[in-house]
Amino acid sequence: MHWLLKRFGAGGASLIKGIGDDAAVLRARGAADCMVITTDMLLEEVDFRRDWLTPSQLGHKSLAVNLSDLAAMGARPRFFTVALALPPDITRDWIQAFYTGIARLAHRHRATLIGGDLSRSPSGIQITITAIGEASPKHVIYRSGGHPGDLLYVTGVLGRAGAGLALLRQGRSTGRKNVERSALRAQRTPAPLCETGVWLAESGLANCMMDLSDGLSMDLPRLCLASGTGAAIYGDQIPVFAPARAWHCDPEELSLHGGEDFELLFAVSPARAPRLEAAYPANFPRIHCIGRLLRKRGVFWSPARNKPLRPLVASGFDHFANRTPKSGGPK
Amino acid sequence: MHWLLKRFGAGGASLIKGIGDDAAVLRARGAADCMVITTDMLLEEVDFRRDWLTPSQLGHKSLAVNLSDLAAMGARPRFFTVALALPPDITRDWIQAFYTGIARLAHRHRATLIGGDLSRSPSGIQITITAIGEASPKHVIYRSGGHPGDLLYVTGVLGRAGAGLALLRQGRSTGRKNVERSALRAQRTPAPLCETGVWLAESGLANCMMDLSDGLSMDLPRLCLASGTGAAIYGDQIPVFAPARAWHCDPEELSLHGGEDFELLFAVSPARAPRLEAAYPANFPRIHCIGRLLRKRGVFWSPARNKPLRPLVASGFDHFANRTPKSGGPK
Repeated sequence: MHWLLKRFGAGGASLIKGIGDDAAVLRARGAADCMVITTDMLLEEVDFRRDWLTPSQLGHKSLAVNLSDLAAMGARPRFFTVALALPPDITRDWIQAFYTGIARLAHRHRATLIGGDLSRSPSGIQITITAIGEASPKHVIYRSGGHPGDLLYVTGVLGRAGAGLALLRQGRSTGRKNVERSALRAQRTPAPLCETGVWLAESGLANCMMDLSDGLSMDLPRLCLASGTGAAIYGDQIPVFAPARAWHCDPEELSLHGGEDFELLFAVSPARAPRLEAAYPANFPRIHCIGRLLRKRGVFWSPARNKPLRPLVASGFDHFANRTPKSGGPK
Repeated sequence: MHWLLKRFGAGGASLIKGIGDDAAVLRARGAADCMVITTDMLLEEVDFRRDWLTPSQLGHKSLAVNLSDLAAMGARPRFFTVALALPPDITRDWIQAFYTGIARLAHRHRATLIGGDLSRSPSGIQITITAIGEASPKHVIYRSGGHPGDLLYVTGVLGRAGAGLALLRQGRSTGRKNVERSALRAQRTPAPLCETGVWLAESGLANCMMDLSDGLSMDLPRLCLASGTGAAIYGDQIPVFAPARAWHCDPEELSLHGGEDFELLFAVSPARAPRLEAAYPANFPRIHCIGRLLRKRGVFWSPARNKPLRPLVASGFDHFANRTPKSGGPK
């Protein structure tokens, strides 16, 4: 039958990148741009506690973690679906506030809600968002493009969201000082770096990229695995959130193992680094070179460039390996 | 800046259909085909009970309900993501069996797993799948294309999955007779009608279509709302699952209010109905004309064509209106 031939014949979208990156990449036949697709869940008592953030903040964060995955591929957000399971005690006002938080962030990034599912939940709020972005096939950045010798960069400051989590755990959910409010904001309403990700992709300067969701010590090994490299990073080069010391956190520890910063981690050939540093827009979150990729496998850390390297032990948030989260989760 | 102009300038995928159908429809700039996207959740104790189906059957069903949404648009399955939250007592063997069930159905329909998320769950298994299909823009079928006077058709038999649910509720999870096994199979491992949906779409004969997931009495009003019509259906024309009488079910009730049959409901202009009935492939599930669309709003039912019509009261499964499921859910 003709329609069967058509169905199984040539044509149709091609899968450019499947499992194993921040998002999958498809390209419809004839299409100018790729579609970039990612799915992330947020579960009550695993990823958040209801009394730690407002419904609007929760809506923001649920979408933000997905947009951050698109940013990590250099893709512009376009569309998303929301699957929401809600326990019986959730009110209509709660749901409206939740969607207000989503809508504000979506509007800022020009993303459109295109569908989803709503169910009652026997226990706990469960949110699954699938986000779809677009990027030129020339510009998509994968985790796998790094080369030994590339310089490793991060955007912004690492450990700020972890410092916010520490405040929440200490029962200090209202910041008195600016630095406290900044940490709480990073934890509750992270800003996905979509424009930065797209700029880095379109500049052609970054060889590989990912977003930091589970902490540098968990995420950097993933970048290295995909690129077939190792890495060395230097403690004194990593931008830490120093004010966290005031609430008994170790900013260096948080910068390595605190999750949910949603900053970008990327690698640049040394020859291109000066061009990056010159061209990088001043109104974007600052970038810091924190180390480099190595031919030798493994991820190594030293307090400073002239000190001996030692293996960096991963202790961020991993649902797989570690069902009791150490950091990144609410427990 | 050039990249900002590029970002907010013309171009990019266009949204052809957003919220309000079985799936959303996008079209990348320059692409030959549309992408059709749907998201569905399955939650333990809401949509299934763990002791009612094997992990492999659960995997099958989770993907099947999504592929059925694609079938309802006339789209060929292509890709899907799986977000899975699992309680601590779930074993690695369970997870493998779950994915085996998914993989078998995916292979049958040529769909590729492209990503997802995995998390621990504080209580109950939670599955969210997003499926992506493709269809020619000429052929996609929406819920909204029906006209007054169109003849209403369904595929297969209605109420069989509901009859299977009744067996499970009666503790009869192993069928002794063929008809029992057939009902249990419809409930546990529904077959998404992808080929039928694509055939109907490519034939150009169906004006509107949807899949029956929550029962005819819930779903038909949705088709009517989207098409701006009413509908009349005739009990003696509806293909019911008569053997269910043997286990104290009312087949007529189940055909109207039992959910999860995942049959297709579609409308055809009377002038084209003979062509449909002549061309419809013999190896597809049989189709039955069960009534017609009306200019007058509302959904009406009568036991037979020559009997008076009365309003059909919806009592299928609705997460929104009705947080204690009457049918379609496991409670």
